[in-house]
Amino acid sequence: MTPEAAMRLAVEHADRVKGTTYPNPPVGAVILDAEGEVAGVGATEPPGGPHAEVVALRRAGARAAGGTAVVTLEPCNHHGRTPPCVDALLTAGVSSVAYAVGDPNPVAAGGAGRLAAAGVDVATGVLADVVSGGPLREWLHKQRTGRPHVTWKFAASVDGRSAAADGTSQWITGEAARADVHRRRARADAIVVGTGTVFADDPTLTARRPDGSLADRQPLRVVVGQREISSEARVLNDDSRTMVIRTHDPHEVIRALTDRTDVLVEGGPTLAGAFVRAGVVDRILAYMAPILLGGPITAVDDVGVPTIAAARRWRFDGMDAIGSDLLVSLIPA
Amino acid sequence: MTPEAAMRLAVEHADRVKGTTYPNPPVGAVILDAEGEVAGVGATEPPGGPHAEVVALRRAGARAAGGTAVVTLEPCNHHGRTPPCVDALLTAGVSSVAYAVGDPNPVAAGGAGRLAAAGVDVATGVLADVVSGGPLREWLHKQRTGRPHVTWKFAASVDGRSAAADGTSQWITGEAARADVHRRRARADAIVVGTGTVFADDPTLTARRPDGSLADRQPLRVVVGQREISSEARVLNDDSRTMVIRTHDPHEVIRALTDRTDVLVEGGPTLAGAFVRAGVVDRILAYMAPILLGGPITAVDDVGVPTIAAARRWRFDGMDAIGSDLLVSLIPA
Ligand SMILES: NC(=O)c1ccc[n+]([C@@H]2O[C@H](COP(=O)([O-])OP(=O)(O)OC[C@H]3O[C@@H](n4cnc5c(N)ncnc54)[C@H](OP(=O)(O)O)[C@@H]3O)[C@@H](O)[C@H]2O)c1
Ligand SMILES: NC(=O)c1ccc[n+]([C@@H]2O[C@H](COP(=O)([O-])OP(=O)(O)OC[C@H]3O[C@@H](n4cnc5c(N)ncnc54)[C@H](OP(=O)(O)O)[C@@H]3O)[C@@H](O)[C@H]2O)c1
Repeated sequence: MTPEAAMRLAVEHADRVKGTTYPNPPVGAVILDAEGEVAGVGATEPPGGPHAEVVALRRAGARAAGGTAVVTLEPCNHHGRTPPCVDALLTAGVSSVAYAVGDPNPVAAGGAGRLAAAGVDVATGVLADVVSGGPLREWLHKQRTGRPHVTWKFAASVDGRSAAADGTSQWITGEAARADVHRRRARADAIVVGTGTVFADDPTLTARRPDGSLADRQPLRVVVGQREISSEARVLNDDSRTMVIRTHDPHEVIRALTDRTDVLVEGGPTLAGAFVRAGVVDRILAYMAPILLGGPITAVDDVGVPTIAAARRWRFDGMDAIGSDLLVSLIPA
Repeated sequence: MTPEAAMRLAVEHADRVKGTTYPNPPVGAVILDAEGEVAGVGATEPPGGPHAEVVALRRAGARAAGGTAVVTLEPCNHHGRTPPCVDALLTAGVSSVAYAVGDPNPVAAGGAGRLAAAGVDVATGVLADVVSGGPLREWLHKQRTGRPHVTWKFAASVDGRSAAADGTSQWITGEAARADVHRRRARADAIVVGTGTVFADDPTLTARRPDGSLADRQPLRVVVGQREISSEARVLNDDSRTMVIRTHDPHEVIRALTDRTDVLVEGGPTLAGAFVRAGVVDRILAYMAPILLGGPITAVDDVGVPTIAAARRWRFDGMDAIGSDLLVSLIPA
């Protein structure tokens, strides 16, 4: 297997543990033996557990000697709750290491240098874009900015409506798109809505499996706004924890979530517009249904753009068919 | 070359002549010699000129004998302004014919049967979806329904706005998307707008090349509405012909264009909504820019959907990146 193919496999495994590893990064690792065959695959275990490289090395056993370690993030070089991965790689006797992204954390960094000094062939930048835009996106953002990564998700018709004229919106998108949202919720640390969505829809805001059962992991539910919500509101049920933030300031919401990494904004047009105007949206996920609705109810109202020249530019960084819908992803240009 | 690869080549050539052949279909043909090498390629010439098969056979010359003719449409079997293509294929001595779509015109059909009766191997259905959704889409629609095929094209931000709050809209989409629109205009038979667009934007509604010069072929310009437009309006200039239709009834517009095949609706939200409500839109082309605009100006207003259950379902049948924009195509589900 080529290092690129191995990196794709590592990315896949990293994606699977996304959400379960914070404050550690969700990393994937593949050990190729001296013949280039896959000898072991691993991903970061929950905090306190071993890092991806160690899991993969254990699975590879003696086959790691003379082989290649392919890792999505530069192997760490510091004693945290676990010993440095660099030590494990050297002990196992790998002859080369390929990683995608350097560790932005100065305490953990230096792994590549130590490996090279010990005579290991080190390659960096393998599928760096795939990794930094994929499994490590939210964690890298947090490392670089100190703030959680904010994704605004909305579902709309192809003409930008989030409900029909009479307010009905169940369902704009199909089953596959809704299942995808629940998978993303299960990986997120928090889901944010405004009180308006709670009053209008009384959602539970949980991550559920297609059969309706609760996913293993539930994000924190966050309700933003001054109005008091009913103690009977489903968002306050026992399925997960809930934070009520009595503000209209998105920055205050972000500050309240400063220990989180991956925040999903699922609010209505008012909250979404406030987050966009405040410039705190790091990614937009638009689920677009192949229908026209027309009418006054749009996915977002005021984004602070009075005239076309003032429009903030984004960049499409992905589009996928999901069932009969489209998922379009945008990041700041 | 496989028959499929040859069919792709034939589709490419058919696409190039789209718009120049009506009332004849824009057809592409490839002649493979006995070794499977491309011996000749052709596409329908303007009315009165030879059909695709004849053009391709002429280029192939003696190499056609024992070869394969790959054609997007069933070879015709009738004397129109030109002799039947079946005769030309038999005279050239091809040993097999592969075509995508059967001729829906009972007068021209029967070509496959005559070829088979003459001992030629005949295969049908090769890339039928590509052809019937592509170069032959509008012509087939016209054959089947007697009405022109109507494409509603709009440009909008990812939140469905066709202008910023102050009405400015130049430019929502980028250069590549705008060039794509001009290419489509040059292939269309008519472009339809409402008087509102003429009053607001005073567009010329011509097909222009990237350098601003007029394309060789100009569609008929059609302005719909009761209000009188100024004799100074650019849409009335000499670059092409213009029809003014004083009605609000889309069916009346379609009737006035009954001798056309490929109609592009480029109106504002009022006209677009009327066409959608009347059920006369056969395809939607949405050029989506990676920006958010918010505000009251949407690409379409009233599409006649009071409640979500009443939404008419469409189907995404294509999505392409065009420069930094997305082109999404929908057809009735
Ligand atoms: N299609 C979708 O993806 C989607 C997703 C969610 C909701 N929705 C729909 O959206 C509708 C609800 O819309 P909505 O706009 O009322 O929901 P919302 O944005 O979730 O909640 C609005 C409320 O948030 C509070 N708020 C927080 N920050 C604010 C700010 N900066 N400025 C003003 N208010 C702020 C206000 O509550 P206080 O008045 O209490 O201060 C405001 O009334 C529902 O019909 C729901 O179905 C659609
Ligand atoms: N983003 C895009 O793709 C795009 C494309 C075109 C235009 N636009 C924008 O759209 C805006 C103009 O909007 P608009 O809605 O006024 O333009 P429009 O739809 O092109 O024209 C509206 C006019 O069409 C006539 N009309 C025809 N059928 C009708 C019906 N069934 N019901 C009612 N009226 C009918 C009426 O004229 P009478 O009153 O004369 O009868 C009406 O005022 C401009 O700002 C323009 O820039 C955007």
